[in-house]
Amino acid sequence: MLPSQELIKLPQAQSFNPHLKRPRDHCGIFAIENHRGTIPAAEIAFFGLQGLQHRGQESTGIAFVDSTGLRAKKGMGLVGQVFSRKEISAIEANTILGHVRYSTTGSSSLVNTQPLIAHSSDGHSLAIAHNGNLSNSSVLWQELLDQGQIFLSTSDTEVLLAYIYRNRYRSITGSVAEIMNISRGAYSAAIMDKEKIVAFRDPHGFRPLCIGRLGDANIFASETCALDSVGATFEREVQPGEIVLSSGGKLTSFIPEAGRQAKKTFCIFEYVYFARADSNLNGKNVHQVRKAIGENLAGKLNNNVDLIVPSPDSGTSAAMGLSEATGVPMDWAVYRNPYSDRTFIQPGQSYREIRAQLKYNPITDLVRGKSVAIVDDSIVRGTTARHLTRLLKKAGASQIHIIIASPPYLHPCYYGIDIPLASELALAQSNPKKMAEFIGADSLIFASLEDLYKGTGANKEDLCTACFTGDYPLSSPANKTIRGDQLEQPKK
Amino acid sequence: MLPSQELIKLPQAQSFNPHLKRPRDHCGIFAIENHRGTIPAAEIAFFGLQGLQHRGQESTGIAFVDSTGLRAKKGMGLVGQVFSRKEISAIEANTILGHVRYSTTGSSSLVNTQPLIAHSSDGHSLAIAHNGNLSNSSVLWQELLDQGQIFLSTSDTEVLLAYIYRNRYRSITGSVAEIMNISRGAYSAAIMDKEKIVAFRDPHGFRPLCIGRLGDANIFASETCALDSVGATFEREVQPGEIVLSSGGKLTSFIPEAGRQAKKTFCIFEYVYFARADSNLNGKNVHQVRKAIGENLAGKLNNNVDLIVPSPDSGTSAAMGLSEATGVPMDWAVYRNPYSDRTFIQPGQSYREIRAQLKYNPITDLVRGKSVAIVDDSIVRGTTARHLTRLLKKAGASQIHIIIASPPYLHPCYYGIDIPLASELALAQSNPKKMAEFIGADSLIFASLEDLYKGTGANKEDLCTACFTGDYPLSSPANKTIRGDQLEQPKK
Amino acid sequence: MLPSQELIKLPQAQSFNPHLKRPRDHCGIFAIENHRGTIPAAEIAFFGLQGLQHRGQESTGIAFVDSTGLRAKKGMGLVGQVFSRKEISAIEANTILGHVRYSTTGSSSLVNTQPLIAHSSDGHSLAIAHNGNLSNSSVLWQELLDQGQIFLSTSDTEVLLAYIYRNRYRSITGSVAEIMNISRGAYSAAIMDKEKIVAFRDPHGFRPLCIGRLGDANIFASETCALDSVGATFEREVQPGEIVLSSGGKLTSFIPEAGRQAKKTFCIFEYVYFARADSNLNGKNVHQVRKAIGENLAGKLNNNVDLIVPSPDSGTSAAMGLSEATGVPMDWAVYRNPYSDRTFIQPGQSYREIRAQLKYNPITDLVRGKSVAIVDDSIVRGTTARHLTRLLKKAGASQIHIIIASPPYLHPCYYGIDIPLASELALAQSNPKKMAEFIGADSLIFASLEDLYKGTGANKEDLCTACFTGDYPLSSPANKTIRGDQLEQPKK
Amino acid sequence: MLPSQELIKLPQAQSFNPHLKRPRDHCGIFAIENHRGTIPAAEIAFFGLQGLQHRGQESTGIAFVDSTGLRAKKGMGLVGQVFSRKEISAIEANTILGHVRYSTTGSSSLVNTQPLIAHSSDGHSLAIAHNGNLSNSSVLWQELLDQGQIFLSTSDTEVLLAYIYRNRYRSITGSVAEIMNISRGAYSAAIMDKEKIVAFRDPHGFRPLCIGRLGDANIFASETCALDSVGATFEREVQPGEIVLSSGGKLTSFIPEAGRQAKKTFCIFEYVYFARADSNLNGKNVHQVRKAIGENLAGKLNNNVDLIVPSPDSGTSAAMGLSEATGVPMDWAVYRNPYSDRTFIQPGQSYREIRAQLKYNPITDLVRGKSVAIVDDSIVRGTTARHLTRLLKKAGASQIHIIIASPPYLHPCYYGIDIPLASELALAQSNPKKMAEFIGADSLIFASLEDLYKGTGANKEDLCTACFTGDYPLSSPANKTIRGDQLEQPKK
Repeated sequence: MLPSQELIKLPQAQSFNPHLKRPRDHCGIFAIENHRGTIPAAEIAFFGLQGLQHRGQESTGIAFVDSTGLRAKKGMGLVGQVFSRKEISAIEANTILGHVRYSTTGSSSLVNTQPLIAHSSDGHSLAIAHNGNLSNSSVLWQELLDQGQIFLSTSDTEVLLAYIYRNRYRSITGSVAEIMNISRGAYSAAIMDKEKIVAFRDPHGFRPLCIGRLGDANIFASETCALDSVGATFEREVQPGEIVLSSGGKLTSFIPEAGRQAKKTFCIFEYVYFARADSNLNGKNVHQVRKAIGENLAGKLNNNVDLIVPSPDSGTSAAMGLSEATGVPMDWAVYRNPYSDRTFIQPGQSYREIRAQLKYNPITDLVRGKSVAIVDDSIVRGTTARHLTRLLKKAGASQIHIIIASPPYLHPCYYGIDIPLASELALAQSNPKKMAEFIGADSLIFASLEDLYKGTGANKEDLCTACFTGDYPLSSPANKTIRGDQLEQPKK
Repeated sequence: MLPSQELIKLPQAQSFNPHLKRPRDHCGIFAIENHRGTIPAAEIAFFGLQGLQHRGQESTGIAFVDSTGLRAKKGMGLVGQVFSRKEISAIEANTILGHVRYSTTGSSSLVNTQPLIAHSSDGHSLAIAHNGNLSNSSVLWQELLDQGQIFLSTSDTEVLLAYIYRNRYRSITGSVAEIMNISRGAYSAAIMDKEKIVAFRDPHGFRPLCIGRLGDANIFASETCALDSVGATFEREVQPGEIVLSSGGKLTSFIPEAGRQAKKTFCIFEYVYFARADSNLNGKNVHQVRKAIGENLAGKLNNNVDLIVPSPDSGTSAAMGLSEATGVPMDWAVYRNPYSDRTFIQPGQSYREIRAQLKYNPITDLVRGKSVAIVDDSIVRGTTARHLTRLLKKAGASQIHIIIASPPYLHPCYYGIDIPLASELALAQSNPKKMAEFIGADSLIFASLEDLYKGTGANKEDLCTACFTGDYPLSSPANKTIRGDQLEQPKK
Repeated sequence: MLPSQELIKLPQAQSFNPHLKRPRDHCGIFAIENHRGTIPAAEIAFFGLQGLQHRGQESTGIAFVDSTGLRAKKGMGLVGQVFSRKEISAIEANTILGHVRYSTTGSSSLVNTQPLIAHSSDGHSLAIAHNGNLSNSSVLWQELLDQGQIFLSTSDTEVLLAYIYRNRYRSITGSVAEIMNISRGAYSAAIMDKEKIVAFRDPHGFRPLCIGRLGDANIFASETCALDSVGATFEREVQPGEIVLSSGGKLTSFIPEAGRQAKKTFCIFEYVYFARADSNLNGKNVHQVRKAIGENLAGKLNNNVDLIVPSPDSGTSAAMGLSEATGVPMDWAVYRNPYSDRTFIQPGQSYREIRAQLKYNPITDLVRGKSVAIVDDSIVRGTTARHLTRLLKKAGASQIHIIIASPPYLHPCYYGIDIPLASELALAQSNPKKMAEFIGADSLIFASLEDLYKGTGANKEDLCTACFTGDYPLSSPANKTIRGDQLEQPKK
Repeated sequence: MLPSQELIKLPQAQSFNPHLKRPRDHCGIFAIENHRGTIPAAEIAFFGLQGLQHRGQESTGIAFVDSTGLRAKKGMGLVGQVFSRKEISAIEANTILGHVRYSTTGSSSLVNTQPLIAHSSDGHSLAIAHNGNLSNSSVLWQELLDQGQIFLSTSDTEVLLAYIYRNRYRSITGSVAEIMNISRGAYSAAIMDKEKIVAFRDPHGFRPLCIGRLGDANIFASETCALDSVGATFEREVQPGEIVLSSGGKLTSFIPEAGRQAKKTFCIFEYVYFARADSNLNGKNVHQVRKAIGENLAGKLNNNVDLIVPSPDSGTSAAMGLSEATGVPMDWAVYRNPYSDRTFIQPGQSYREIRAQLKYNPITDLVRGKSVAIVDDSIVRGTTARHLTRLLKKAGASQIHIIIASPPYLHPCYYGIDIPLASELALAQSNPKKMAEFIGADSLIFASLEDLYKGTGANKEDLCTACFTGDYPLSSPANKTIRGDQLEQPKK
């Protein structure tokens, strides 16, 4: 225990707290247990992780058991870059725990690649793969620090692993159940040891996690598209607060007391932006949800709009819905060059124009003289919208209207989304008119929360909408004891 | 001169003739002359080549003059992989000749990367960048071999360069004019020396080449989209048979006698497949041409079709046109995973299913119980159509109709397109019914040539349609003397 | 605390204990504090680590403080491969902690690269660089595991760091002093935080560590050659059991009670093999020590020897001494090819001959018809001696005598040397005659311990000679409670 | 043929003539024909090229015949970097032509990697590997240029290949014989086609080339050490002017008329510096030649010298000879760090000291108060000698005498050695005293030519000594017509 006078210094020292820095914990999980097919389990995991690559491009890793025990292969880069066919095919294990992680800069983040392994001397080493973000990780972290635990990584996944390890008593599932009593925030995760995989979601169910079946094997995956990628059948979603154990291809499951008490608050931004269009979330296809949100925007479309143009490629689904609902034609009037390399762009005036041109090119004939509505799924800083507006105006569009298929993004997320910097949120927080001015558009229209509820078919109370509303679902007693922890917002 | 009895052996030795092998000469050219802007010419060329990356991903290179004379930086890979910002920014030259080349396998092809440089002792070294394919390259090659020329590369570009160099007399332009008398086939190309760039198209004008202006600089580019990428204005296209010289930012041009005599026959496949959707070819936007072809297919669409699905992503433009013309809704019912890595797939039954699943995933809800039309721009072997048909049927589609926005690809191209292997063309050449059976579709419908003429707005006689019709534009006296050269087809 | 019945299982589970596997902890440390010279501190560290590269080629890393706190750059490979000039020059810190680590196979060992950092929320993060091996690491590790600590790496350095962190109370130096009470074995190490570097050696002083001065900066380095590399002056060695703190360029030091009690036992193998020839250990130049050992062997040399040949390059110093003392000429009769690549060699009879030839080539003229003495510094498996014997006999040598400038290596080291596998030691342990038979030599002569004492000038009781004698210096009460820990040998 | 008035411009244009630039053509050749052993021929070539790696580290390549004809694998870097075991083992050919090339900077030199292949349509493609430098390459090159040949590389090897190809008439050997009539300078080379290897040396025999036997295979290698590396037996050297054909494992050979007329002038610098110590040149072991030269210097050694120190590692052989002849003890008083990385060193005063320290470290005890003689094999700019002098004086040496085991290097080489820049030769050309001043040594002593003749055992008239004497062996009629070619020196 640190002497109390030292704690007073904490606020000044925050800049050294890696947990107070902008986390980027958008991730994907793919685990397969008891695979006996012709294609080795490690290859199935390789394919499955490629199916989740959109959830994380920074790094990837797999854990498995070989003759030396539980170990991991990990690296920075895409799945297809980190693993060679030769390495993967040489892995004989029937059970694999895999992970992809979001892109950040800096090779130092190598210590944060997952799965993390807690090495043990008694043959009970544990590996963890985690999607989400503990909102009280600083508190938990400090508690463990006070008890002498050291942390080699700067991720809250190590905190989670440490708690599960030290609270495991006789079983992993018991230890995970214990976790639900103390950790707050988002965690869809899977734990692996020599004999089993234990998958679980936090009681709120912020992040998705589903169960699939491939022959004799059980699969846990962040999204259903990964099941499709490997030809597995979708069984069901892991329930919020549920702990599912797969061993020898058999599933058992329970929801501990702590898992039952929380309100279910699935992240609305998974529908808006994160999930792959062909995935199903809570039984709904994501592409169709986005189309439906676009349809719901029909009444807000300026009457004089001649052409609907999707922001490539994120605005396509909503633009389709809007076009179908209004009868206003949609066309791909902006081409996006997949080969453009922003790293060559220097700061400064002379490069400003080329910045947008390189990536986007309007088809002049399609927009000349027309009033154009550009549709995108969401907006943070508005720079893409500004680029497109400028390019289409230069190409002769008479008016530009920006249609965003979600409300303004106003509040940081503490449950697993890359938190936009305050400066990035400032413009949105000011007001839509100022943002429209920045963008240079003739109007800027947002979907309402109601539009999103209707589109998702989910009940208002089943979704976390904190990034749009500031209405954070978590306000627990634990917060009252936070020292120097600014992460968790007070319940309004 | 080789003794005549040795020539008789040639047919048996063909397997050693690299010019008789399947060429893959799909390429892009970007040249800038006399650039004085803030952004260095080499960076402009870097951005411009990224705008042409779709025309060649195998290798790239740039030529320029520095204190050591005319030299080149080249390498295997994408533009953003081959060149580092540091290297590019260090190049002070105001004139750059750049090239991208199609993807083949084998590092040995490094000798074929362009620009090629003919080194000279009198300060008159020449660099060449070439898009196209000489149909009589074997004849020309043999002539030069007989005269003692050796060839370090296996590309017809070295043949072209050797002829231009040895026929240059007093000027490059004169030498290029001479080329038009002897070389047959497709060549949009640019030659560079210390003082100028000379760009030219073969008299038939098979491949595109256009002129742009950026400040005081002239640009030659394979497609207009590359001009847009760097913020240059489109000036005009280089005419078939035209030789354009840019020196000190000034353009002069002429069409030699040989350039005037040929029939203009622009490659119809540039409209169908090659060119970027946002480029203009002969004044027509490519995306809109493809849409128009789709519209022209309206009458051929089976009445019972419920949904039009574009083959991702090549069928989008035509599918849009078809949907607009018929009123049948279009939707993106198949997701394509940009991260899927085919190199992991092994041959064999167990991998067959996973092969398609990895790359494509249908949205089951959209197609279940429906009669679906899959639209693609062209078809060669039919494997993609077969994959999609199988996936959509498995997802519950009641019928699958394949709509191809071009006629069957039946004949090899000798003018710059990767020649499909005979075995790949076999199925198409049999008959559409057999191909539909292979694909497993309920019907297989092709656009007619008339559909394409209407879509492009070009006259029938102005286009080369040999790949669809076998009607090769070139049947010259030179062919009569070919020894062991199977490349050029007799005029039917 | 784990329930006791679980502990019974431990022996069976040993194969999963990474601490029971063959450690390879040969390492080098270079730390610089308070550097203000023209050349940035990070560059000085780069040069200094290259001067210690012989002590570890697997991986390297540096720790330093920047605006985000204490952090590390690390990677697998040589110093010149892991760090780019650009990265190093961008580091503005005046204090750097650097490390090089021995070569092992397996990318998974990335988690073991040093410095390790224990991240803290109060601005008191700690980095550690460690050379040595804790002989009771399994015990310490288990204690921490029992208390809930998890370990992400498999190195005993994390154990050391965890103990220092949790025992730090008010000061780092106090915590390090505490370490000396509980950890056994070899540890020359340095700890860094935002304000200082604390360097220390275990009470036995197994591994070297010295202090240098460069302008206003203090340097801690494993060997004096690293001081020479950067132009620093040698100040003194860190004493066994001493804790030295450098802060703001000022040194303070003390030897805690636990540091005073132990017998000093410097590793004799540092003289024999590890240290660079130009380093000084305990005031003696290593090359001259090795020469002196060679001289001491004069009486053992067979009278009929015509030529002394050093085993390239490790036998040179001793061979020189032997030649000078006996008057028998020495010559470099075997050339070693620095470019030979063993990875190409396959197992099997056909490759057996080529295996030796590739790396070593005798100069036939020099050895034909002669009785040759091959001199090497040490011998473990005897394969190099066998290769050389065979090659020289084939080249016409009439007799081959093997002279080893140290005693037979018979016992594993638990204090920081790569422990030879039991199978590798078996031959040596049998008897010298069997080894001579294996090698195929006419005789095999070893230096005695007395030869080494005379050569080093050190007292017998000041050296650890366990690898030659099995006489392990450590036999502490802690050992009595070891559960399943086979590492530490009982005192004989 | 270019009009004559254009030729007048040539002198001004020289800077664009790559053949007038500093060539770096130090190379090694390894060819194996008709290999039938268990280890594939390509692996034998791999091992053999590693045995010649000291002759060229820039690039390497091998040529061989597979189902697609004659082709090459080449790349920048060391043999072990360019070729993977997998690639090499997959090559089934029994005949391989391999090459290593000297290190230069600039990736553009990729076009100059060897073997070069002249592709032919009649199955008679030729590959060449070349060691040496044509002194009249500019003339030959211009002749071919005038005849229309273009050159994609900037190496004289392409000139050689073009002449052999165009003069081949009915046989390769006839064409090679023809070459001896027209090309001047140094060329040990091998030509390969589908059926054979033809190896040859220029009539002067500047560069070495020997023949070995391995089972049924014949080997051609630049040095005998490469034969040893692969376990082949040395058969004999290729004679100056001899053309040796190996086909089906059978050797035939002849010396054409042109090959008989020239004076034999073997490069003396191969003995002094180039060749590996364990190679034999003209039947003499190189290490022993160098030792003998050292012995011959005994009379020149200052009487007061206490210690002989070899310059690491190039001065070892001569230092040994000198020590043995004089009785003055020799010791390795300077350690060279093989890991030092000069690329980190910046220009400027602050880095000056560190420049030498990083690479070299004196053992102070050995030199303090002593008069030291530093021995090296040769000297060009004197920078290494200056570094060592400064370091040893700082370490306390009372005097430093520099002993160079060859005469001053005063004249550029046009026969295959990297030509030192004029500025590098300036100091040497001034006089030894000025060079001693630059170095800071108390004396600077060179071996005389007579010392070298005695050491090599070769007759004075059988060696090319142009680099020491300016006495160039070649002064042919061809030179009289050179236009703008400054390469070949007039016969004095």
